[in-house]
Amino acid sequence: MANEKIPYKIYLEESEMPKAWYNIKADMKKKPAPLLNPATGKPMTAEELSAVFCDELVAQELDEENAYIEIPEEIRDFYKMYRPAPLVRAYCLEKKLGTPAKIYYKFEGNNTSGSHKLNSAIAQAYYAKKQGLKGVTTETGAGQWGTALSMACSYFDLDCKVFMVKCSYEQKPFRREVMRTYGASVTPSPSTETEVGKKILKEHPGTSGSLGCAISEAVETAVSNDGYRYVLGSVLSQVLLHQSVIGLETKTALDKYGIKPDIIIGCAGGGSNLGGLIAPFMGEKLRGEADYRIIAVEPASCPSLTRGVYAYDFCDTGMVCPLSKMYTLGSDFIPSANHAGGLRYHGMSSVLSELYDQGLMEATSVKQTEVFEAAEYFARIEGILPAPESSHAIRVAIDEALKCKQTGEEKTIVFGLTGTGYFDMVAYEKFHDGIMEDYIPTDEELEIYRKKLPKIG
Amino acid sequence: MANEKIPYKIYLEESEMPKAWYNIKADMKKKPAPLLNPATGKPMTAEELSAVFCDELVAQELDEENAYIEIPEEIRDFYKMYRPAPLVRAYCLEKKLGTPAKIYYKFEGNNTSGSHKLNSAIAQAYYAKKQGLKGVTTETGAGQWGTALSMACSYFDLDCKVFMVKCSYEQKPFRREVMRTYGASVTPSPSTETEVGKKILKEHPGTSGSLGCAISEAVETAVSNDGYRYVLGSVLSQVLLHQSVIGLETKTALDKYGIKPDIIIGCAGGGSNLGGLIAPFMGEKLRGEADYRIIAVEPASCPSLTRGVYAYDFCDTGMVCPLSKMYTLGSDFIPSANHAGGLRYHGMSSVLSELYDQGLMEATSVKQTEVFEAAEYFARIEGILPAPESSHAIRVAIDEALKCKQTGEEKTIVFGLTGTGYFDMVAYEKFHDGIMEDYIPTDEELEIYRKKLPKIG
Repeated sequence: MANEKIPYKIYLEESEMPKAWYNIKADMKKKPAPLLNPATGKPMTAEELSAVFCDELVAQELDEENAYIEIPEEIRDFYKMYRPAPLVRAYCLEKKLGTPAKIYYKFEGNNTSGSHKLNSAIAQAYYAKKQGLKGVTTETGAGQWGTALSMACSYFDLDCKVFMVKCSYEQKPFRREVMRTYGASVTPSPSTETEVGKKILKEHPGTSGSLGCAISEAVETAVSNDGYRYVLGSVLSQVLLHQSVIGLETKTALDKYGIKPDIIIGCAGGGSNLGGLIAPFMGEKLRGEADYRIIAVEPASCPSLTRGVYAYDFCDTGMVCPLSKMYTLGSDFIPSANHAGGLRYHGMSSVLSELYDQGLMEATSVKQTEVFEAAEYFARIEGILPAPESSHAIRVAIDEALKCKQTGEEKTIVFGLTGTGYFDMVAYEKFHDGIMEDYIPTDEELEIYRKKLPKIG
Repeated sequence: MANEKIPYKIYLEESEMPKAWYNIKADMKKKPAPLLNPATGKPMTAEELSAVFCDELVAQELDEENAYIEIPEEIRDFYKMYRPAPLVRAYCLEKKLGTPAKIYYKFEGNNTSGSHKLNSAIAQAYYAKKQGLKGVTTETGAGQWGTALSMACSYFDLDCKVFMVKCSYEQKPFRREVMRTYGASVTPSPSTETEVGKKILKEHPGTSGSLGCAISEAVETAVSNDGYRYVLGSVLSQVLLHQSVIGLETKTALDKYGIKPDIIIGCAGGGSNLGGLIAPFMGEKLRGEADYRIIAVEPASCPSLTRGVYAYDFCDTGMVCPLSKMYTLGSDFIPSANHAGGLRYHGMSSVLSELYDQGLMEATSVKQTEVFEAAEYFARIEGILPAPESSHAIRVAIDEALKCKQTGEEKTIVFGLTGTGYFDMVAYEKFHDGIMEDYIPTDEELEIYRKKLPKIG
């Protein structure tokens, strides 16, 4: 089909949807460093992990051998309700920019969770149900993950307890209400429902919360209640595994039309979207079959890849989770409250951290006012009002397309449009009113948190 | 493809998308009654109408001859950004209900306006641009139409002035912010910006506004400003014409798999979605080629078809618009403020009114608590959180499917899922908190407004 006119939206047939997830660790010669038990300093065993996580998910977390892991039929059926996600050719954006570049985006926002998060939520809920659990606990920041998990738990009739970062809980009452529609219980974090929550409240009264803190509360709640486990929407290898469905669909759609991307761009908070989007392309790169420029885009206010250090750190503020080797700003780091939207996590997926450390991908950071400029521009041209997170990728995709305009190069750019911004209108309002501020931590600030990193590894 | 397994979502190819709209009036033996000039009592001429509406849209409004009207390429290109809309087989809903019925829904919510309204907005903006106008004015109730028009105007670089029913303006600040993202100006109605607004405010201080009142303000603003015209998101024949794209896509998708629906269900406020969805099916019915049960679902709080009278009435509260023969509750009728969402219009499309009067379709009304029960049930099973308006159709589709369960009939039900409820979480919250009330006007109340109907026709 190489010479066929490429449609505005490439939809795969149901029969072309992936039947297995792709596990990039199988193709990495140098594997990511293992999770460590903070008490012993030794790699976490499956048994230790299964106190916190579902058994099958623990197996996926530790799997470094199998490149493909079959997607159970029940999950594939659920995927069919909202997938395949369209790969969109941004004809209107290209025309408006006057660029010779060809721009594509994989749009993951056509479902009620509003983002790609549902891809992993349904998988994690499925394995929890299969294990006969009563329910799961989790944290949510911007709210996409909590919404996605609520939907997934409702589908499998599982109890769902969400700790929502307090500032989001207050700024986004409608997100909370969507979770409630799906039967989840939502608690602002830090809360007095957990020991770690009480401790954090005592040490930082008036705190607006953080992802790291909400994680600690969710983990504590899971391990202290029978029949519950903790689930996480990003960072972990299992999440990147499930999210590989994004990249696999993207690659199949591109291959169908004989398109080879030059640049692949994704926003990066904990790494769930970026890791999923790039998975099969990075796989080709690792196997020496093809080369691509891969760019992670993070907020200047929370720059773990571009300004963090590659070291073992806690995944959560309360230090109840295993240690992970990753690019990190320190588990106490919390971006300024004026930062809108997600991508507020202090660390980064260990898989992506290792790939970045090996020089297999680039990273860049952007300021949020530049991000919202790109978001509004994109909304007016391509119709979709994007999530602040996704708009980080839009910003850099536009910048790369404008470089092509200068050089005349006809590069093919693919970026991940992870979701919609319908629950982020408070942030858009600030932007329209001209009162949105940029926050960039100083080196001195970052140094404070860096000094507190655990001395391991 | 008749024996092929039907996918969860049927997406047409771009090449299968309609190239012409279908004008049902051409196939009606008895045509809808003409719009009348309230001053003379005579049919409105094209010249008279063109003071208010764009020339090309006036021609479409009056066209009773041409069954097909070509969709200009620019509009088809815009359609390709968010269409074709999927026709979804509700496998999960069928299974949960345990019904032998086969349920399909045409989902129009996969665009930032959140509804089908964009189909007509882009057409009306296109013709305004083509005529060299500076901008357009309109009203919006629940906000979908205003958002859709803002998006369309932004695409064609037209000025867009929206009068938003005051209670919606206050309840839905985020809808307003989306319109602002697309560069529209939004004024709560009634306002002091127009003579008619000032008059209504004087007569009804503290009013929460109505669609009829906002229409009057928008029309006044259009006719008193050079280079502006008024555009309307429902009721008019031109809108039903543009919305026929919904039904045409639905029919093509069904035909592709050899499916013949038994029942077609749509919610009805002014009639834009229902008229569009049923158009080609009703066309077959009018030409004696096929038969279908067609059901209009309206709110019990605003029951124009089921409890109104078929008579000439004003389209707006301020009586500045032409008179239309339609099922109406009287142009002063305003549903109780406790009614959530749209479908608050006092009248009904003259085309649908005439078809209903000829016995070619049925109508039923449902209470809003029943509607939200259906909405939540549907959200949990099919994943999509529906708009309150769309949920009227869901309610009746579920009821019809449950009847099939009792009788064992394998009927095929198609309903219109017009949009998503992401900006309606205040209403969902009321429902969850158990404080949502039902409002059904008494016969005495309706009689008050009925007596005020103009004595014409």
